[in-house]
Amino acid sequence: MADNKKLVEQITAMEEDFAKWYTDVCRKAELVEYASVKGFTILRPYGYAIWENIQSIMDAEFKKTGHENVAMPVLIPESLLKKEGELVNGFAPEVAWVTHGGSEELEERLAFRPTSETMFCDHWSNILQTYRQLPMLYNQWCSVIRWEKTTRPFLRSREFWWQEGHTIHETAEEAQAETLQQLNCYADFFEKVLAIPVKPGRKTEKEKFAGAEATYTVECMMKDHKALQGATSHYFGDKFSRAYDVTFTGRDNKLQYPFQTSWGSTTRMIGAVIMTHGDNNGLVLPPKIAPTQAIVIPVAQHKPGVLDAAQALLDRLTAMGIRAKMDASDNSMGWKASEYEMKGVPLRVEIGPRDMEKGQCCICRRDTGAKVFVPLADLETAVPALLEDLHQNLYNKAKENLEAHTKPCLTMEEVKTFIETEGGFAKTMWCGDTECELKMKEVAGVSSRCIPFEQEHIGDVCPVCGKPAKHMIIYGIAY
Amino acid sequence: MADNKKLVEQITAMEEDFAKWYTDVCRKAELVEYASVKGFTILRPYGYAIWENIQSIMDAEFKKTGHENVAMPVLIPESLLKKEGELVNGFAPEVAWVTHGGSEELEERLAFRPTSETMFCDHWSNILQTYRQLPMLYNQWCSVIRWEKTTRPFLRSREFWWQEGHTIHETAEEAQAETLQQLNCYADFFEKVLAIPVKPGRKTEKEKFAGAEATYTVECMMKDHKALQGATSHYFGDKFSRAYDVTFTGRDNKLQYPFQTSWGSTTRMIGAVIMTHGDNNGLVLPPKIAPTQAIVIPVAQHKPGVLDAAQALLDRLTAMGIRAKMDASDNSMGWKASEYEMKGVPLRVEIGPRDMEKGQCCICRRDTGAKVFVPLADLETAVPALLEDLHQNLYNKAKENLEAHTKPCLTMEEVKTFIETEGGFAKTMWCGDTECELKMKEVAGVSSRCIPFEQEHIGDVCPVCGKPAKHMIIYGIAY
Repeated sequence: MADNKKLVEQITAMEEDFAKWYTDVCRKAELVEYASVKGFTILRPYGYAIWENIQSIMDAEFKKTGHENVAMPVLIPESLLKKEGELVNGFAPEVAWVTHGGSEELEERLAFRPTSETMFCDHWSNILQTYRQLPMLYNQWCSVIRWEKTTRPFLRSREFWWQEGHTIHETAEEAQAETLQQLNCYADFFEKVLAIPVKPGRKTEKEKFAGAEATYTVECMMKDHKALQGATSHYFGDKFSRAYDVTFTGRDNKLQYPFQTSWGSTTRMIGAVIMTHGDNNGLVLPPKIAPTQAIVIPVAQHKPGVLDAAQALLDRLTAMGIRAKMDASDNSMGWKASEYEMKGVPLRVEIGPRDMEKGQCCICRRDTGAKVFVPLADLETAVPALLEDLHQNLYNKAKENLEAHTKPCLTMEEVKTFIETEGGFAKTMWCGDTECELKMKEVAGVSSRCIPFEQEHIGDVCPVCGKPAKHMIIYGIAY
Repeated sequence: MADNKKLVEQITAMEEDFAKWYTDVCRKAELVEYASVKGFTILRPYGYAIWENIQSIMDAEFKKTGHENVAMPVLIPESLLKKEGELVNGFAPEVAWVTHGGSEELEERLAFRPTSETMFCDHWSNILQTYRQLPMLYNQWCSVIRWEKTTRPFLRSREFWWQEGHTIHETAEEAQAETLQQLNCYADFFEKVLAIPVKPGRKTEKEKFAGAEATYTVECMMKDHKALQGATSHYFGDKFSRAYDVTFTGRDNKLQYPFQTSWGSTTRMIGAVIMTHGDNNGLVLPPKIAPTQAIVIPVAQHKPGVLDAAQALLDRLTAMGIRAKMDASDNSMGWKASEYEMKGVPLRVEIGPRDMEKGQCCICRRDTGAKVFVPLADLETAVPALLEDLHQNLYNKAKENLEAHTKPCLTMEEVKTFIETEGGFAKTMWCGDTECELKMKEVAGVSSRCIPFEQEHIGDVCPVCGKPAKHMIIYGIAY
């Protein structure tokens, strides 16, 4: 299905224009395409295949801890959405409204879900009766709409694809534990699947989710030293339960309100992967989410036996459970090398007459470009080891980037200079007042990313007001 | 998470009120719940788990023949939707319209997709250049909205979940072959996965999809002898390509229009499963889509060793790849039997002290209610054989129902009497004129289901007009 005539075009160098490099990668690797509907994007087969791998691994993790998938209606009556004031105030400016069904104007307009807390609460208010039904651990994979002004592939789009977990529990403690368990699940996913190191922590009052008592986040750093919020997990207390009249008969035989959480991650994770691992040759994919983990390329394929040898390699890789393909098209070796580099395929496996004589194949790594000759007899051990090493190398390089561009700062000026010259995560102390957070934003142009779980003692006072510090906090410029 | 106190309530007998029996099963088996939004339903965990199994099996089949998943925007600009007249005329009365984004009124209103031919064509018009890119074999799993007046769980709902395949090809022959290949894929899925026999065939001009040159269908018969359209596959020729200006440079170096297909199946398949296999004790699930294929129940579980023995059974079933669970709750044996019958779990595996002495377990089949004692040593061979036999038995019973209520009819009166007294599929000859089809509907209250691929010679003339017959056709009353 590839267009044989297509030339692999050059992409903008990331040092020259990072934003343009990013968009070039998204399009040249055929991940997304713009739609005719303004602000909407299309996930093309290669981009969607990455999302499918993300979904399948993450979904299995959710199920291990007892979560079940459901499907809620996509449209929410305005009156239902409005029952909890903070949530609707947070999302109202971004809601798309359905006003007509067929030729009739609706009596009440319906919101395309921007998030589904309200629908889950409404459902629970109908089905929950006793503590014996708790906890209810639900999740759904779907798309949501938020009417953003400016859009960028994966990072900000009017429609995006995500999972939203929604749970209710008998006690506050259980709900708080769930909130943190799911945040840890995301942190593990980022590190072990996406090869992206994260800074987990709590959002400030200013940055937390509309209506939540507490929001937790995993923050990552892109290659341009900007921050990207990877995924979030929220604890709601019983605020929504009370607003939506969700009750159950407790162990004491009295009516009680359950405690609630929600947690979400989106297709923006693909954007994080691009900007964490990509390079000037294109996409670099961590093996666990790569649609093709190894591409087999026959060298001098017209020579006798070469195609058979390549096919035998492909068969062995497939039998090992590696997602492998073969490209025996008539495109040049140079074209093929560029094409699969652009697509971020982790391993390129070449075999030609000389390799066959020596009983070997040549494996080229996408991350380092290094070529190793692997005896054919060792294929089953060498390939998984290479993939594992590639994952670890991607993670290590990202971790180096994160650490090299994280700096403890004692004054607002220091933060400002650091952000303007180098960019990255500025660690400072903080008194806990929103005013100081806002002042920091005004002076240094940064937003607070999180109050990390791993606290350090950088100083005794808030660099903004000079009052005693309560926490260490991370500031940065975010996507 | 089950409510231990819940009593398994009686459901309406299907002989008494089939429609009420159906709704009772949907709700008591906890498949769906009504939402606060009129005409919308919620897929609850158990219902959604069935859908996940359907998706996973069907998706793998699609991928075997080279289809790739994508995600298209959910909203379609009105002008784009209107480019192909027949399609928009077919769907306009059922479209939900988004008119506002945030606080702003949109310049052009946007349709919530009722189907996505238009979006795929628009995308292809942007990315297709040469015949070397063909065929493009796409599919997406998503929800669509059609603003129906009356709604029933799974069968007719304003929002429903489906897959929609969309493909373009270099030649008409290839597109026609794809249309039929996908119809066969559905027929196989119904028979081998859902255990539902089907009558595959072509829809008449009157019943075909808006804008299609030809629509093919798999028709099934429910236990009340009514027809249900299982899935459809459409051939469009180059009609949409021309309307949406989708072109490619052909082998002759000239601009050409590709030939197009689409094919879809929906959550209504779950409705078909309920009405094909269900009984007065509730749901009966074919093993391949059952979320739980075997439920292990310890008997006299307080006795020493019983729970361990039950756990060992569960572990062995799980190790075999069977989707198994254990219910060691304090509910009575009677309650558990009723509960898992209601949920349609194919096998109930019981083990108690006496079984342990004899080195056996007792397996009860959901379809026949038959109990067999299986030596523990034989578990790995007995369980898969029982599941296979259960599937085959469900299929055979459904096939008997289909054949027993299919009748060749020579006159309109005969059709009318058959439909009024017994109900089912009336096979008649047909001249091919829509007028005769309409007359049959008027007189006998039936719609044409399909012109089956397997034609029979019932007579020489159309029973309506008396002119020479061209085809055998099936009539029935449809969901």
